[in-house]
Amino acid sequence: MRISELSASSDVPVHTLKYYLREGLLMPGLATSRTRAEYGPEHLERVRLVRALVEHGGVGIAGVRSVLDALTAPPPSRHEFLGVAHAALPTNGEDAPPSPEVTALADELGWQVWAEAPSARALGAALAAAREAGVAIDAARLRRYAEAMREVAVIDVEHALTARSPEAAMHAVVVGTVMVDPVLVALRRVAQEAVSAQRA
Amino acid sequence: MRISELSASSDVPVHTLKYYLREGLLMPGLATSRTRAEYGPEHLERVRLVRALVEHGGVGIAGVRSVLDALTAPPPSRHEFLGVAHAALPTNGEDAPPSPEVTALADELGWQVWAEAPSARALGAALAAAREAGVAIDAARLRRYAEAMREVAVIDVEHALTARSPEAAMHAVVVGTVMVDPVLVALRRVAQEAVSAQRA
Repeated sequence: MRISELSASSDVPVHTLKYYLREGLLMPGLATSRTRAEYGPEHLERVRLVRALVEHGGVGIAGVRSVLDALTAPPPSRHEFLGVAHAALPTNGEDAPPSPEVTALADELGWQVWAEAPSARALGAALAAAREAGVAIDAARLRRYAEAMREVAVIDVEHALTARSPEAAMHAVVVGTVMVDPVLVALRRVAQEAVSAQRA
Repeated sequence: MRISELSASSDVPVHTLKYYLREGLLMPGLATSRTRAEYGPEHLERVRLVRALVEHGGVGIAGVRSVLDALTAPPPSRHEFLGVAHAALPTNGEDAPPSPEVTALADELGWQVWAEAPSARALGAALAAAREAGVAIDAARLRRYAEAMREVAVIDVEHALTARSPEAAMHAVVVGTVMVDPVLVALRRVAQEAVSAQRA
């Protein structure tokens, strides 16, 4: 298909596609003349992924580039693949210092967690912010929250592992993580009402 | 204590305390002269609650007022108390139309959910936004997420029920819900890494 058709199919304007081409986020099409190129379904899938990462995943251009590098030269294990996806995710508090509280939680649960990871730092920052607001979460309560969120993570990881392509797996991890967060937050409130109604 | 001492104990400036008094968010002290009043521990607890609701809960003045009304004239049941707290919570998507998907989920799980509630509307909106971003969550996956978030809600409700005062319960529900959201979001990412590492 021509670039105009790629634009129509992906619902991304031609000037944005040209920007993706210049930035190397979209691989060049097959040149059919000095000014024309032909694009295939792999270009369409790539455009959809880049668009989703930027628009819905809140990922910056540098993050998109590292996700795409991982697709071009996949890391040896699926686990490292997830690490690349996670590193691209925008995470509040990812620059916070590593937290001993998080290390203690991981040890207690037998979780293999890298204390320097953005997610572990973000957890430490969120716990500190809650404490400052008068919401002290003791170790027992934190462990119960962690066990519930582990159930969520099992669903997430299963879903990413059954994706039909590496592109789809990246989409599932990055966009899936970002877009499902508000679903979980809303489910928590709905569940609070259901639990409260049941006990009343 | 004098207003200056109330300010020092609560770490809230005197001019903000005077604003709370004018708006009726803080009950007047006991007048000891034409220009002086005496404040007690109940004033300190109230100031801390108002401050936490506004600063950490993201609650607007109207929301604070309805929370305080519920404290002054408590609703007949603890469940309605939670409803007041929830109504004060800032919730993205609370103006969205009621969603048949949410009603179906509640029916399937046997959850008593009011389809018009802000939390139920917010859930419908979050599901629609995810779908638009190419993250389609089928009914089976949604049910599993809901069951995990029910575990979170049980911890939340237990915590609110064991609070030492109605003020503390309101704080637990409103500020606790808002400040624990980022903890859960970070726990989800940490757990994804732990689950992925385990399967690698």
